Amino acid sequence: MTILALTGGVGGAKLSLGLSRVLEPDEITFVVNVGDDFEHLGLSISPDIDTLTYTFAGIVNESTGWGRANESWDCLTELRRLDAESWFQLGDLDLALHLFRTGLLSKGKSLTEVTSVVCSRLGIVHKIVPATDAKLRTRVLTDQGLLEFQDYFVRLKCEPKVSALEYHQRTITSLSPAVDVEKVTGVIICPSNPFLSIDPILEVDEMRSLLAERDFPVVAVSPIVGNRAIKGPTAKMMHELNMPTTCTRVAEHYRDLVDGFVLDEEDTSRAPDVEKLGIRVRIAPSIMKTLEDKIALAKVCLDFIDKLR
Amino acid sequence: MTILALTGGVGGAKLSLGLSRVLEPDEITFVVNVGDDFEHLGLSISPDIDTLTYTFAGIVNESTGWGRANESWDCLTELRRLDAESWFQLGDLDLALHLFRTGLLSKGKSLTEVTSVVCSRLGIVHKIVPATDAKLRTRVLTDQGLLEFQDYFVRLKCEPKVSALEYHQRTITSLSPAVDVEKVTGVIICPSNPFLSIDPILEVDEMRSLLAERDFPVVAVSPIVGNRAIKGPTAKMMHELNMPTTCTRVAEHYRDLVDGFVLDEEDTSRAPDVEKLGIRVRIAPSIMKTLEDKIALAKVCLDFIDKLR
Repeated sequence: MTILALTGGVGGAKLSLGLSRVLEPDEITFVVNVGDDFEHLGLSISPDIDTLTYTFAGIVNESTGWGRANESWDCLTELRRLDAESWFQLGDLDLALHLFRTGLLSKGKSLTEVTSVVCSRLGIVHKIVPATDAKLRTRVLTDQGLLEFQDYFVRLKCEPKVSALEYHQRTITSLSPAVDVEKVTGVIICPSNPFLSIDPILEVDEMRSLLAERDFPVVAVSPIVGNRAIKGPTAKMMHELNMPTTCTRVAEHYRDLVDGFVLDEEDTSRAPDVEKLGIRVRIAPSIMKTLEDKIALAKVCLDFIDKLR
Repeated sequence: MTILALTGGVGGAKLSLGLSRVLEPDEITFVVNVGDDFEHLGLSISPDIDTLTYTFAGIVNESTGWGRANESWDCLTELRRLDAESWFQLGDLDLALHLFRTGLLSKGKSLTEVTSVVCSRLGIVHKIVPATDAKLRTRVLTDQGLLEFQDYFVRLKCEPKVSALEYHQRTITSLSPAVDVEKVTGVIICPSNPFLSIDPILEVDEMRSLLAERDFPVVAVSPIVGNRAIKGPTAKMMHELNMPTTCTRVAEHYRDLVDGFVLDEEDTSRAPDVEKLGIRVRIAPSIMKTLEDKIALAKVCLDFIDKLR
């Protein structure tokens, strides 16, 4: 049996860390968004994979939730002196991983293979896999035109007003071959941005058909608590897409896909609305500050999946 | 009028610095070897161009003659931790230039254009140009097989025994468009390794025909003083190629090409042998330790060219 955890950036990495402390490596596979991946100064960068990798390796910058702890910035300072593109925060330690990845990809390794090598070099025993080895890229349609994801997210700091999202891919896409679809016994959608982190994973054709034909439960954790996102632009984006910024609206977004939905205690009053969508509800503290918080929420999700079988 | 200075690594950069202090930017063009260029971890690296760039910008590591002064090595340390290829010394500051170059090349800029932008960003007023924008790569045939140049030079530390060199190119190659061949009034071959630094420049078809049809003098400075190379593997390589390690043998190597040859005072006794090759000789101190040494040798070369007109 294998649980798939679908995850994106910082929020997803927190629940994933909790799950990794509860389940053995052969019991869970972390399927990571690649819609944010991009090429920058010749480097192949996979921000969400790196966030999870650094988190699992215990070397993440705890205050930001992404990037390396004890990072140095000599190269970036020099890029600025050269008046080079320097909007993306390339730390000296972080750069090593981008160079290593880019070198292996240029030798014909797949992103799945590269990610597996990186994990083993950093002592990570759990399986982190890119959603797909195909090139799938999120683009954001905004009042400033159609933007590549990182242009929108980092360079323009999510300031443009979003009207739609698209997930560009050239071919029918398969899941990473490291995902054993035959063995899946449940799926957890982490509290990541639905549009930027989860939808790109659901755009992978093989993932869509896996979920459509499933005989296992799917549970999502709301990234919205009260009327705000715990982190990142989810609430701002929902507002611009003319959606109420509520967990109920997130549940509606996932309605054809999930059997269960985990709400924060603060949103207890919204549970009946979510249940009206035909989705079962669990109420649990979902703001994860400590490792204990993460493990507790992980246990709630796993227990919920068990009950939904 | 324009003098072309043909130059490679550290020795060439020393004389070039002297020349840049004597001539105005419109009076000289520094034509740099690209046979050492290579791709590493996805980066496009041009070691000889960088050595000259850092030298002219006053930011070179004075003790090695290459790389950056006050360099830091956080990224390389991290690459080692990842057990990535780390035989090439990638400093954090140096990396910025490789990333900047790689980014511009990936956007379709030529190496000539990139080099010009880098020079202007670093405040360099003299013209540094790659010998060619075409891909020309030095390979070394050794007792360990045919090696890419950097494999031989850095990874294997010039230890394999050399039996031949080849300069791989796919097409008839042009000089960099930044070289104004109509205006050339003299050529100085800097005291760089003849096989690794100068011959790849001479392999550029347009350079060969420029020199074959010339009406201007060509002067070379010996990189061999006594029986040793001032720096690098020139002497070891000449020995392996069954050549006596003397300035006379270097002059012979260039015999069809040069009108004048500058020898070190230590080699005064060899002057008649060089003259027997039909080459005029100047004797001058050629071991350049101080800026004054570099300027003095530059003046000797320029005066020699004037006298040969």
